[in-house]
Amino acid sequence: MKQEFIDALIGICGKDYVYSSKEDVSGYLYDETEEFVRPKACEDCLVVRPGTYEEVSKILQWANETKTPIIPRGGGTGACGAAIPTIPSVIMSMERFKDIVEVDETNMMITCQTGVTLAKLNEYLNENVHALYFPCHPGDEGAQVGGMCIENAGGVRAVKHGIMRSYVKGMKVCLPNGEIVQFGGKLVKNNMGYDLLHLLVGSEGTLAVVLEATLKLYPRLDYTGALVCSFKDTESAVKSVGEVQKAGIIPLAVEYMDRDIAVETAKRISKTWPMSDEGCVDLIYMVEEATEDALYETAGTIAEICENNGAVGSVIAENEKEQRNILEIRSDIYEVFKPEFVDSLDTAVPVAHIGDLLRYIDAIAEKYGTRSPRFGHVADGNFHNFILMVDGKVPEWADDMRRDIYKAALKYGGTVTAEHGTGKTRKPYMELQYTPHVLEIMRNIKRAFDPNNILNPGVIVDL
Amino acid sequence: MKQEFIDALIGICGKDYVYSSKEDVSGYLYDETEEFVRPKACEDCLVVRPGTYEEVSKILQWANETKTPIIPRGGGTGACGAAIPTIPSVIMSMERFKDIVEVDETNMMITCQTGVTLAKLNEYLNENVHALYFPCHPGDEGAQVGGMCIENAGGVRAVKHGIMRSYVKGMKVCLPNGEIVQFGGKLVKNNMGYDLLHLLVGSEGTLAVVLEATLKLYPRLDYTGALVCSFKDTESAVKSVGEVQKAGIIPLAVEYMDRDIAVETAKRISKTWPMSDEGCVDLIYMVEEATEDALYETAGTIAEICENNGAVGSVIAENEKEQRNILEIRSDIYEVFKPEFVDSLDTAVPVAHIGDLLRYIDAIAEKYGTRSPRFGHVADGNFHNFILMVDGKVPEWADDMRRDIYKAALKYGGTVTAEHGTGKTRKPYMELQYTPHVLEIMRNIKRAFDPNNILNPGVIVDL
Repeated sequence: MKQEFIDALIGICGKDYVYSSKEDVSGYLYDETEEFVRPKACEDCLVVRPGTYEEVSKILQWANETKTPIIPRGGGTGACGAAIPTIPSVIMSMERFKDIVEVDETNMMITCQTGVTLAKLNEYLNENVHALYFPCHPGDEGAQVGGMCIENAGGVRAVKHGIMRSYVKGMKVCLPNGEIVQFGGKLVKNNMGYDLLHLLVGSEGTLAVVLEATLKLYPRLDYTGALVCSFKDTESAVKSVGEVQKAGIIPLAVEYMDRDIAVETAKRISKTWPMSDEGCVDLIYMVEEATEDALYETAGTIAEICENNGAVGSVIAENEKEQRNILEIRSDIYEVFKPEFVDSLDTAVPVAHIGDLLRYIDAIAEKYGTRSPRFGHVADGNFHNFILMVDGKVPEWADDMRRDIYKAALKYGGTVTAEHGTGKTRKPYMELQYTPHVLEIMRNIKRAFDPNNILNPGVIVDL
Repeated sequence: MKQEFIDALIGICGKDYVYSSKEDVSGYLYDETEEFVRPKACEDCLVVRPGTYEEVSKILQWANETKTPIIPRGGGTGACGAAIPTIPSVIMSMERFKDIVEVDETNMMITCQTGVTLAKLNEYLNENVHALYFPCHPGDEGAQVGGMCIENAGGVRAVKHGIMRSYVKGMKVCLPNGEIVQFGGKLVKNNMGYDLLHLLVGSEGTLAVVLEATLKLYPRLDYTGALVCSFKDTESAVKSVGEVQKAGIIPLAVEYMDRDIAVETAKRISKTWPMSDEGCVDLIYMVEEATEDALYETAGTIAEICENNGAVGSVIAENEKEQRNILEIRSDIYEVFKPEFVDSLDTAVPVAHIGDLLRYIDAIAEKYGTRSPRFGHVADGNFHNFILMVDGKVPEWADDMRRDIYKAALKYGGTVTAEHGTGKTRKPYMELQYTPHVLEIMRNIKRAFDPNNILNPGVIVDL
């Protein structure tokens, strides 16, 4: 990029905080999107790392004057290519904003600067305010608070307390024109005007840059446990999830594993999957309680409800080691299959249609002469299906299969992406889910915030 | 309005469903906004009552062609004048859309047509799906589902499961151009594109017309109880609310009453307020549990925590009659004072600042030589302060006092309206809460959906 751009950014932030060499910039050009679907990064980029909100404001004002694309960047843990520049851009890394601003115990909320990582947030609460915790856990603890908010991150533990949208009560943001404003706050009710806070959640850095976020906390329950129940078919497993909740037990998480995938994963990482009965679908129920007795009682009730709904076996993780074994096998599915897959999809359907969708996907896979290993956040209806490589290569029908699966999810009242986001990788499929008129409304919303299209251009909508 | 307008609407819906006489129209010109702040209704209006979604679509297409204002109308229970026409308009009443479309027990969701009242929704669940219920309860059970969604209704029971935004998972809507689309569905996670569903919640009929809504249900717990705890000051009372929640008990509701107001209200309706100790602030904790034993245990724990935080007395409503007595006194405050007040405000502040705000408001009232009776949803930081009449008239300083209170709420990180909405009555105060640039973004969002400004013009924004 032009030397005058480098000079302008150095003028705002100082020379230590502007990177222009290929080597320095290279670490900011990727995110966690799967290799074969990841957009090709444009290397002709600069990195700026502002240290004050005023600097962020000045950078955006400058970008508006010079019509320079700005890519706000958090932890780089996104999975839709939203943080990967594909045209010459200035990557604005928020990594220096890493202060915990306030924990307000009366309001049970924490206010963090945008660059606080999930790891730091959890560590801070654990050490300083043990009575409260932040249950949301979208996998990678390197994720930063601003990114989690603006991407509306989800993850495993969304059953009891919801996804990021449920936690975000306020955000201080910098609008594309450089104005710094606060939306919401330590508030649970706010009906003044259109709710721009909730419009920003999930807007993937295209409408505003997050500076601070206020997040809801929950009382920490000291005992968490995992129970695995096995079923002979998907329908029974899914039905148990509804019945458990109807009994008034809301688990932290309920994870779905096909037995063959669980066993295969365990074998590849030299572990043993605890279930070996006649079941072919295993559910991991994760629960939390204030006492050990209550935990066992809850687990016992869940096991009983599952049995009444056709479960053929159940195993309670008796200690931390057993629990870790189960959860590691579950979370290693992705890594174990990663070298073999082209893409990991992120559809969701209404829970009652999970069985329909999975059967449909199996039929689609058969049509292409492949299989589609998967795991799922079953209580959210959210499944991650893999499209596998063939002989180490991306098969030519990969995108056809992807589209078929998206259409199947939509047919059952679902969505193309439940938690990973639209970004650049799923933007081409927006027209499957929305009409041209709705897409035009979305473009006009982008224009309302960012008429010069400087903020994360090419993400969600093209202007 | 012109005869050709009447003819056009009759052409779409049939003559039985178009009202044009002053007498027929008059019942559609008000809502529940307080008399002295209610905008003056324009009587030169028509009422149309479509019976199919296609008719709604045709009405909007016709309105776009003829640039005719359309006022979508639900139960008329709003409190911000959003449903009151102030220029010649067509009032589109959604009252004929009163079917329960589906209760999906596996997904724990209900889909209703827009005109289903809260009373009918509750009755239907009680009779047909007793295991599940809809906890949200914004006062008037004549409220209709579509109105509750689009106004983001709140109410007393928002502590445990949130306001309407937390319940709404999907909406079928008619866009101003007549296009019928579905946003969200029986889904708990959806990250495809900008979240227009959440933008519509709270948009007060200015961006789209709700046809159907899908709402989250919760397991019904059969035992509900009320516990009143008294305190010598607001700070202790407020602190107890946080401590109770930190102990892992999330009440359905926590209501705040000044003792003098509670006693005065009880007296005026010939009842007796149960508290007569030295306290001056009473909190009503409403809790629900699956068994009677659990209910008493929970109430006991709350009473203990309150005592540890300075409570000077506590009374558990032992039976339904006592409980009804307490709740009736609480809910009659509004009606008892209504003949005497000009306005009932709806500010919210962070819970930890409630004491600051109430003291500040007392000082403001003193400045104007008046008092400001109030009640509050304390766990939400949401207080309804009255501005009283003087000698049966609206004092000339009424709006100054209102503005002072709004500014005080904003000073403490609050909002002008927590749950009653912006509408026409609070629109003049938008500039207190938002910058000119943010207001311009909101106007552009309105333009993105409704370029001809036909839908509820003059609500939230002016174009």
